[in-house]
Amino acid sequence: MKSDLDRLMKDRGFGGIVVMGPAHENHILRYVTNGAKISEGTVVKKAGEPPALICGLMERDEAAKSGLPVSIYADYNLTDLMRQSSSPFEARLKMLGVILERHGVEGTVSFYGLGDPGQSYLMLQGLAELLPRLTITGETVTTIFDDAFMTKDDSEVTALTSVAERANTVFGEAVAFIKQHHAKDSTLVRADGQPLRIGDVKRFMRGRLIEYELEDPGGMIFAQGRDAGVPHSRGEDADALVLGKSIIFDFSPRDMATGFYHDMTRTLCLGFAPLEVQQAYDEVSHVFHDILESIASGDPYAGYQDRVCDFFEKNGHKTVRSDLGVKSGYVHGLGHGLGLEIHERPGMYSHSKDIVQPRQMVTIEPGLYYPERGFGVRVEDTVYIDEKGEVRSLTPYPKDLVIDVG
Amino acid sequence: MKSDLDRLMKDRGFGGIVVMGPAHENHILRYVTNGAKISEGTVVKKAGEPPALICGLMERDEAAKSGLPVSIYADYNLTDLMRQSSSPFEARLKMLGVILERHGVEGTVSFYGLGDPGQSYLMLQGLAELLPRLTITGETVTTIFDDAFMTKDDSEVTALTSVAERANTVFGEAVAFIKQHHAKDSTLVRADGQPLRIGDVKRFMRGRLIEYELEDPGGMIFAQGRDAGVPHSRGEDADALVLGKSIIFDFSPRDMATGFYHDMTRTLCLGFAPLEVQQAYDEVSHVFHDILESIASGDPYAGYQDRVCDFFEKNGHKTVRSDLGVKSGYVHGLGHGLGLEIHERPGMYSHSKDIVQPRQMVTIEPGLYYPERGFGVRVEDTVYIDEKGEVRSLTPYPKDLVIDVG
Repeated sequence: MKSDLDRLMKDRGFGGIVVMGPAHENHILRYVTNGAKISEGTVVKKAGEPPALICGLMERDEAAKSGLPVSIYADYNLTDLMRQSSSPFEARLKMLGVILERHGVEGTVSFYGLGDPGQSYLMLQGLAELLPRLTITGETVTTIFDDAFMTKDDSEVTALTSVAERANTVFGEAVAFIKQHHAKDSTLVRADGQPLRIGDVKRFMRGRLIEYELEDPGGMIFAQGRDAGVPHSRGEDADALVLGKSIIFDFSPRDMATGFYHDMTRTLCLGFAPLEVQQAYDEVSHVFHDILESIASGDPYAGYQDRVCDFFEKNGHKTVRSDLGVKSGYVHGLGHGLGLEIHERPGMYSHSKDIVQPRQMVTIEPGLYYPERGFGVRVEDTVYIDEKGEVRSLTPYPKDLVIDVG
Repeated sequence: MKSDLDRLMKDRGFGGIVVMGPAHENHILRYVTNGAKISEGTVVKKAGEPPALICGLMERDEAAKSGLPVSIYADYNLTDLMRQSSSPFEARLKMLGVILERHGVEGTVSFYGLGDPGQSYLMLQGLAELLPRLTITGETVTTIFDDAFMTKDDSEVTALTSVAERANTVFGEAVAFIKQHHAKDSTLVRADGQPLRIGDVKRFMRGRLIEYELEDPGGMIFAQGRDAGVPHSRGEDADALVLGKSIIFDFSPRDMATGFYHDMTRTLCLGFAPLEVQQAYDEVSHVFHDILESIASGDPYAGYQDRVCDFFEKNGHKTVRSDLGVKSGYVHGLGHGLGLEIHERPGMYSHSKDIVQPRQMVTIEPGLYYPERGFGVRVEDTVYIDEKGEVRSLTPYPKDLVIDVG
């Protein structure tokens, strides 16, 4: 969590870190500014000191809501530098140098955020020339923020709990919307006699999301039949909802205000479930509950993935453990951390080195996929391992496979 | 436009350009891939040759819809490089080298797109070491894409016209929604007796946007009274709609499918307009139509800004021309280009060097702001200067200041 940043900087030998760029979709800037509603900014953290936020004059008030010490670009000679420089880029580069000097940053300085690759290259190359006493760098594999995101502090848990509650409510409204329709020739139909299509359900959901101040940047999955058997399929908008087909409904909304995600999946069969779907569902459900009851601080997550693979293989399914490119059976990892990104550490695949710890927020999402037999099933809750190591699901929405329709 | 890229590369002496990164909010990648619905990709364009798109295996079909020649990462030894490298980052770096070699790129290669600044720095620094015969660079002031975006080709005009039509329809629905309410003690009230608030109007709009496959990434402005006098204010959700106040309603939705924007503003007074608002509105309206009738290919845009400043100054208003920090009067530029970005070239401020040309898509948006007197007015259409140089507005929504309410 955020309070780990100093320790993580020390582990890496960083004298400073800088987070920069436009705020839109820049979740690292959002993280270090505690969600302040600025349009762009630069955060400098010297080792051992709190981060400082620098922004434009007009956004000073919003920036102050971050709780960080705030200064504005004009405080770093930007106006003079603009006059003395051949371009706004050169002025910004020199200003960044002034910012680092004023904040007393020494040694190795690592950069994060969002930007144009060519401009970032020229900016950091220029900075390295301007301040040769500093070592300018970045992180390419596991970054300091990947490590920090591993656990959540109280304010993050509060935000994640709030988005979870609203996500479950909207999910329930979508299922209720589907149930308002009746079946005709094994297809659900609308009041106007037209088939109820996947696009109708998604449109209904998008309208409801707004009421709960949620957004859906990744796009929900509502995949039926063969599409449910292909984990990356989102479902076809034009397809009518058909009775007795497995529907994987995977929903990962984000709170508009805080940027935190929820992630949940249910498998639905309208009217009835074919035997093979019911059997696969029972297995997935069994292993889901088995894992949920097993999670214990100190355990490696890889062990849970192995446990799921053991169970599925014993029941005759292929798994991703024995064949990385497997298309049928259990074809993916057991889950992932989530927060300001939909996929964060910890990872839950066979070679993951991540360990269960208090304050982790993770998904548990086993599934079975048989595209050639026209079905797939998955069940997913977001679960929190609290400060005492106790595990609780934030996804109370019922896990009934069969949905009665009129 | 896109067909200018070869000429623009030649002007800059570029042997190649590369666009990379995640697709989300990466409008340059969207541009060069013709809106293909991939999650990320790398586009390499050698001087004089069509751009080539490289992506992951799973996205090959979507990538093909770009119309570009498509290859997948595995075609460039990614699997072997992953085995031989100490990290996925090193493998990606080496693969980028293989991609540039295979596509025969020589000389200066400039990079664009979206990425983490520190990672981009290390990636391009590593590439420069790996391929010392190439000069790796980026662009920091006016990029090749800034120049290309200056004019639009037929497919872009079609997409911009489509989003314009839907934007005007939704705008009209919002005004109709407001008019459904009646006034009580100079405030609009809802059926439940509660005041109609700005947040209610914005929520209604967000719901309607979805029906038209539009999104509103920037957030609409619905600013009333004093807030209308502050161009960066978006309006306060909690404020009730009051009769006789100027409301600046500035709406810039984006098409979900193509990513193209529309931009329009109307000033509304509910019930009646105070004399000073009506007078300011008449002046803004006069200068708006004057400019719309004046636009002619070959003219510098700076001249139009001067013409607007002349008119306003003659009428006793301060302008941004005489005082860059002016807070009352005419405080901003006359307009801007738009396309996949909400603000593109050409620019319409006093020192702009941009010239009116056929195939430009621009906003015209004069306004007058008097926060201390509690009002602001602005009128904005998006206009297209067609291939023959003829000017037509894509924003037909009526420009009535006073909106009758019951």
